[in-house]
Amino acid sequence: MRGAVLYGPRDVRLKERQAPKITEPTDAIIRLPATCICGSDLWDYRGIDPVDQPTPMGHEYCGIVEEVGHAVTTIKRGQFVIGSFFASDNTCPNCQAGYQTSCLRRKLVGGAQAGRLRVPLADGTLVATPDLPPDDLIPSLLALSDVMGTAWFAAEAANVKPGMTVAVAGDGAVGLLGVLSARQMGAERIIAMSRHEPRQKLACEFGATDIVTLRGDRGVARIKKLTNGIGADAVLECVGTQEAMMQAIRSARPGASVGFVGVPHGVELDGQELFFSHVRLHGGPAPVRRFLPELIDLVWTRKIDPGRVFDLTLPLDEVAEGYRAMDERRAIKTLLRP
Amino acid sequence: MRGAVLYGPRDVRLKERQAPKITEPTDAIIRLPATCICGSDLWDYRGIDPVDQPTPMGHEYCGIVEEVGHAVTTIKRGQFVIGSFFASDNTCPNCQAGYQTSCLRRKLVGGAQAGRLRVPLADGTLVATPDLPPDDLIPSLLALSDVMGTAWFAAEAANVKPGMTVAVAGDGAVGLLGVLSARQMGAERIIAMSRHEPRQKLACEFGATDIVTLRGDRGVARIKKLTNGIGADAVLECVGTQEAMMQAIRSARPGASVGFVGVPHGVELDGQELFFSHVRLHGGPAPVRRFLPELIDLVWTRKIDPGRVFDLTLPLDEVAEGYRAMDERRAIKTLLRP
Repeated sequence: MRGAVLYGPRDVRLKERQAPKITEPTDAIIRLPATCICGSDLWDYRGIDPVDQPTPMGHEYCGIVEEVGHAVTTIKRGQFVIGSFFASDNTCPNCQAGYQTSCLRRKLVGGAQAGRLRVPLADGTLVATPDLPPDDLIPSLLALSDVMGTAWFAAEAANVKPGMTVAVAGDGAVGLLGVLSARQMGAERIIAMSRHEPRQKLACEFGATDIVTLRGDRGVARIKKLTNGIGADAVLECVGTQEAMMQAIRSARPGASVGFVGVPHGVELDGQELFFSHVRLHGGPAPVRRFLPELIDLVWTRKIDPGRVFDLTLPLDEVAEGYRAMDERRAIKTLLRP
Repeated sequence: MRGAVLYGPRDVRLKERQAPKITEPTDAIIRLPATCICGSDLWDYRGIDPVDQPTPMGHEYCGIVEEVGHAVTTIKRGQFVIGSFFASDNTCPNCQAGYQTSCLRRKLVGGAQAGRLRVPLADGTLVATPDLPPDDLIPSLLALSDVMGTAWFAAEAANVKPGMTVAVAGDGAVGLLGVLSARQMGAERIIAMSRHEPRQKLACEFGATDIVTLRGDRGVARIKKLTNGIGADAVLECVGTQEAMMQAIRSARPGASVGFVGVPHGVELDGQELFFSHVRLHGGPAPVRRFLPELIDLVWTRKIDPGRVFDLTLPLDEVAEGYRAMDERRAIKTLLRP
């Protein structure tokens, strides 16, 4: 079996790897009709989070169950399933509280940019679709595995409610789907921060009502101006940099929530500024598992189409080009066909 | 009129000051039967927040209205009133959202350690009691002006609900009243962090069920042990130091809220730790005005007795001793009689 392996900064290659097999009785093996590259893969690819050994890449997946371990009871061969980047037992106190990415038995899933994948804790991790999906739904179902689940969590953590004015920091795939999530949750006005015309266009199609192209303090000033000097009712932070985090906090009105889902890189928050801002902060690795049943239903009934963030589709053979296109911002998100 | 004035580190004196008078048509002048020293006054007193000129001290107050400006319509001469350390108009969007300490017209109230006080924006700031209070209720009513309102906000920001396990970092007057607030909101188990026997005793009388004397990581480990390895459902941070803030965040279970009301001094939060903690953070200068009607009712009907945190009562003449006793932790909180 061939899969994507990162060797060092900007050096990703398709290599022959051992086919996955059941190693724990709670495992499942799934065959992937499609996989993709995540914005967070770029931290590794760019050497910002350097890899210290050749590392199989990819953590977004959906597909057909080919085999299950003898302790797996609810997931069956032949089902089409979706899971999250953290496997979880879905029974521990943290899972029961809806924070499956803080599961006491959580395991990181890796190596999904390949044809097949081993998923630990299959019963707790995987959610099956009602039936085998038509091909055209596969990109949107794949998106639920991380990018859409993460965007949904950002909106949920930001406490988006009907009628609100919502600001979204970040025009990557998560930010764009944050716009879609806020719209789905009933936001009346959605301010997308983006300087890239094709992304602005998709943001508007997903429901953005205003575009702010300025960054930093000038971006904040523009959002304040758009909100009678008060700030947004909810803000989604979908980047993970200091600039984006501060822009998010400073764009929020007192009492507003900032949902932050960009993995923070070098972010330091000043306690006193946070104190006087009166904002609420909540975020972290999205507990995608919590949202999968609802999100699968929304995709299945064609109420949302998160797969539209895939603006480049390549055969898995061309994974290196898929990374390059995202690194250079030529593509929002690359879908790979094994 | 004499009032407390801070001249420099640990140099507070009772000085003759000009009697307050109406300077804006929205002002009120109130006569104070009692005033007090706040834990936050100690930041100035200790020179951590140095004063650059002689500064009238005190921001907690209640008393009889003696005079009102011509634009004051709801507050009347002769009423007994309580207000917050930030005057607010109670009509701007931030006030309407319940964040009166972020009022667009907010003004800091100062110089309350005296016999009389000017309160700006009287209609928005002051709340009258149902009648003139009996003397024995005055300490508890005075406590509502800041320390009790702040503790209540900590519990509210920490989203305390019936049946929860709540941890409280800080055994100052705010922390102790945080215990009382959590109990009043229905917490089942309340873990107070305190190393001081008299404070532990009052915490238990206010409703604490467990005392943790350890600090830092050992304190966190103890709280985890008391909560099946998961952490508390809600945590109140009532200090404002890096140690207390990290202890609070690390003691919280994923998805729990940390309500932080200690004015942060040198607090820096690492974005990545916050991200992976999955906690919710909310705090700031307590919007006491939002809570005053409910808290006045609870004191008036003798359901709560926050005035018990005053374990030292002195004539205003002895204000210097009042500060010393709190600085040396001989007193939890000093009440001053002008």
